Amino acid sequence: MTTTITAFERSPDGGQGLARDMRVRWALEEVGQPYDVRLVSFGGMKQPAHLALHPFGQIPTFEAGDLVLFESGAIVLHLAERHEGLLPKDANARARAIAWMFAALNTVEPPIVEREQAPYVEGDKPWHKERQPLLESRIRERLGQLSNRLGDADWLDGAFSAGDLMMVMVLRRTDGMGVLEDFPNLAAYVARGEARPAYRRAFAAQRAVFTASAATSGHA
Amino acid sequence: MTTTITAFERSPDGGQGLARDMRVRWALEEVGQPYDVRLVSFGGMKQPAHLALHPFGQIPTFEAGDLVLFESGAIVLHLAERHEGLLPKDANARARAIAWMFAALNTVEPPIVEREQAPYVEGDKPWHKERQPLLESRIRERLGQLSNRLGDADWLDGAFSAGDLMMVMVLRRTDGMGVLEDFPNLAAYVARGEARPAYRRAFAAQRAVFTASAATSGHA
Repeated sequence: MTTTITAFERSPDGGQGLARDMRVRWALEEVGQPYDVRLVSFGGMKQPAHLALHPFGQIPTFEAGDLVLFESGAIVLHLAERHEGLLPKDANARARAIAWMFAALNTVEPPIVEREQAPYVEGDKPWHKERQPLLESRIRERLGQLSNRLGDADWLDGAFSAGDLMMVMVLRRTDGMGVLEDFPNLAAYVARGEARPAYRRAFAAQRAVFTASAATSGHA
Repeated sequence: MTTTITAFERSPDGGQGLARDMRVRWALEEVGQPYDVRLVSFGGMKQPAHLALHPFGQIPTFEAGDLVLFESGAIVLHLAERHEGLLPKDANARARAIAWMFAALNTVEPPIVEREQAPYVEGDKPWHKERQPLLESRIRERLGQLSNRLGDADWLDGAFSAGDLMMVMVLRRTDGMGVLEDFPNLAAYVARGEARPAYRRAFAAQRAVFTASAATSGHA
């Protein structure tokens, strides 16, 4: 059964793997499942054919046989439940790993996305600059709490899990904001994730899309 | 095995069931599981004893035997996986129901929470009023997409599921914002959720906490 995911035709982050398809690519690499990628344009994401797969007109989507899924969290959890490598076998540890997935997506990511999107949404507004410290303080509060919990452990709860995969990906979205550097154990945690062979394969695959589209459009 | 959840000692919403313990109460009622509630104060949530259960110092938490969970999404999913009533039996339909949980929490809820928290976070700032239309337009975009997908169906994907439970709870957070009313099928969808006997039992239970604390503090 072929697995097909969707990703941006033109990478808005310059191939740094911040788009949400990277989470799914990484999970597929961790569990050793091959996949195809269908690239979609920003315009194409809002067309009926894509909206049939993803009601909110985003990427990634996931197609395998009769199953269509959207939401990177749901796709990663689906893969983690069906293949070994992303969830512990112990039932309680498994539930806790899933809790970290939700924590990454519902508690840690929202203030990071707010800060990330502010320049696009209201960069031309007079208040944009003055709101930055407020946006940043909300991120710092979450990272401080996460840093306290992680302590000197390698991963959030025992062995590497889908919860760590999602948290590392969410923390990477702070790139360029100058906050992660103030939490050395979190910076090391992200680096630990990025060093995994599965991560590196996924990163290279998404970067190849950027390199190809940059070559096509005449940019280096 | 006793199940214990945590909830606010003083309900900040006046007993309207908007706090996240309501999601867990509703799920417990849907699957027919009894539970105890331990009330925590705002100050108590930031103390070591509570942070050991919830690293981000929030409610709800979930304790059952040796298992401790946080994040309402993770708790509801845990209950849905272990008891009948919140997830379809068909594997693909089950994965899609879980996708709606993630969509509620990671795609629909964040702009609603931004709008909800703005008065507390920056209500005293000169830009607060001018930002309102921007915040509201982001909610409207998501609700429009959700409305299009729901169409004239009763629930998001077949029978009522944990995905609907979470989406109804998230949509209820728009209460008082004046946006849900512009999407009649979504308003009817929320009303359909609120009419479920399990919802009503959960609502009454959380409201009893508010009524009791209001009586204690001398407010009607």
